[in-house]
Amino acid sequence: MDASREPALLFDLDGTLVDSVYQHVLAWRSALEAAGLDLPTWRIHRRVGMSNGLLVNALARELGRDFSAEEVEALQAAHARAFRELAPHVRPLPGAIALLQELTARGTLWAIATSGTHATAGPNLTKLAVPPTVPVITRDEVPFAKPDPDLFLAAAARLGVAITNCVVVGDSIWDVLAARRAGALAVGLLSGGYSRQEHEEVGAFRVYDDPEGLRIHLDELGIRR
Amino acid sequence: MDASREPALLFDLDGTLVDSVYQHVLAWRSALEAAGLDLPTWRIHRRVGMSNGLLVNALARELGRDFSAEEVEALQAAHARAFRELAPHVRPLPGAIALLQELTARGTLWAIATSGTHATAGPNLTKLAVPPTVPVITRDEVPFAKPDPDLFLAAAARLGVAITNCVVVGDSIWDVLAARRAGALAVGLLSGGYSRQEHEEVGAFRVYDDPEGLRIHLDELGIRR
Repeated sequence: MDASREPALLFDLDGTLVDSVYQHVLAWRSALEAAGLDLPTWRIHRRVGMSNGLLVNALARELGRDFSAEEVEALQAAHARAFRELAPHVRPLPGAIALLQELTARGTLWAIATSGTHATAGPNLTKLAVPPTVPVITRDEVPFAKPDPDLFLAAAARLGVAITNCVVVGDSIWDVLAARRAGALAVGLLSGGYSRQEHEEVGAFRVYDDPEGLRIHLDELGIRR
Repeated sequence: MDASREPALLFDLDGTLVDSVYQHVLAWRSALEAAGLDLPTWRIHRRVGMSNGLLVNALARELGRDFSAEEVEALQAAHARAFRELAPHVRPLPGAIALLQELTARGTLWAIATSGTHATAGPNLTKLAVPPTVPVITRDEVPFAKPDPDLFLAAAARLGVAITNCVVVGDSIWDVLAARRAGALAVGLLSGGYSRQEHEEVGAFRVYDDPEGLRIHLDELGIRR
């Protein structure tokens, strides 16, 4: 561990590199509606990015009731189905492809760590042209997703970098919280629809609009051209 | 004008009384995509609630180009078409119907002032059971929509109440800004997906989660049971 070394970057995927948060929000909304559950959309928005299991638990709490294991599974399946319909409209966020290419070209280590499954992440990795050598940690590979630290710890381990020398990049406060639990600094991006202050309030180190904003400020993280 | 009198309430509609912001966001996203314009969804989200004309201008600016009058019209029509498909899923927000009924029952004056058109507002007024005696000011009736003050000034005039004795209730910062320009206090609701701090930053007097949050705190506005 050497804090003066250039950090490695651990990226969240949905809302951070691809513009998919609002589609996830409406997919959850439609899964809940189909199950006869009426939950306002903004409350769903503020839960996206956390583990799907925790998200469903949190929504159940906000509805003031419990879900059975079968209900949880049915909701998750309904969300996945609804999202698949919207997925073709998901695009890389501004600067995402250029940022990842630049990091790769200059030898900066980076990885992806997402609360999503390998199945939903796949098409987005293709759109982003993520090289096959880059570690991608999904929900399938760790016991707990965000805001637990496991995804980011696994990504750092796969890179062979101390987590304390990693900067997490995410669009939701669940990324920032998971980063802090893991012992990494966190950069917040506004591209998932949280406000700057919400990121700052939970302890983000820096906040940028989107991947392009991060790309042109890499030197603020000690990544020099 | 008597500041010690009980205030009248001027309500925004989308995101304030009905849960429609995220559908409007994706309808704009799909209208822009169909026109070959790639704008990240969160930037659209932060523009919803302002006048459609200003919204399109603001999006053009963020895309770094100008739209012709024909393009603006085509985008607005495409948004309206895409929204009509999603509109059946729009529901009243928690507490909205109870709040309006309670205000009516106790004789508190209230009105609705929306940047939307009469055509899109209609079905939502039905879902909310807005009595025909309640003034509803839409985009069709004023020269400029929010953040210009015209909608709220017209609503206060229709109620016969001084604007300085009105409290505007809205979910977007455009409501708060229009209220301040008009000379009214503004209450922010989180149900449109803005954060508490974004409302406070532009000068909201109070911020609640949703109409139910406002209903149980009416006495904070000097509206007593």
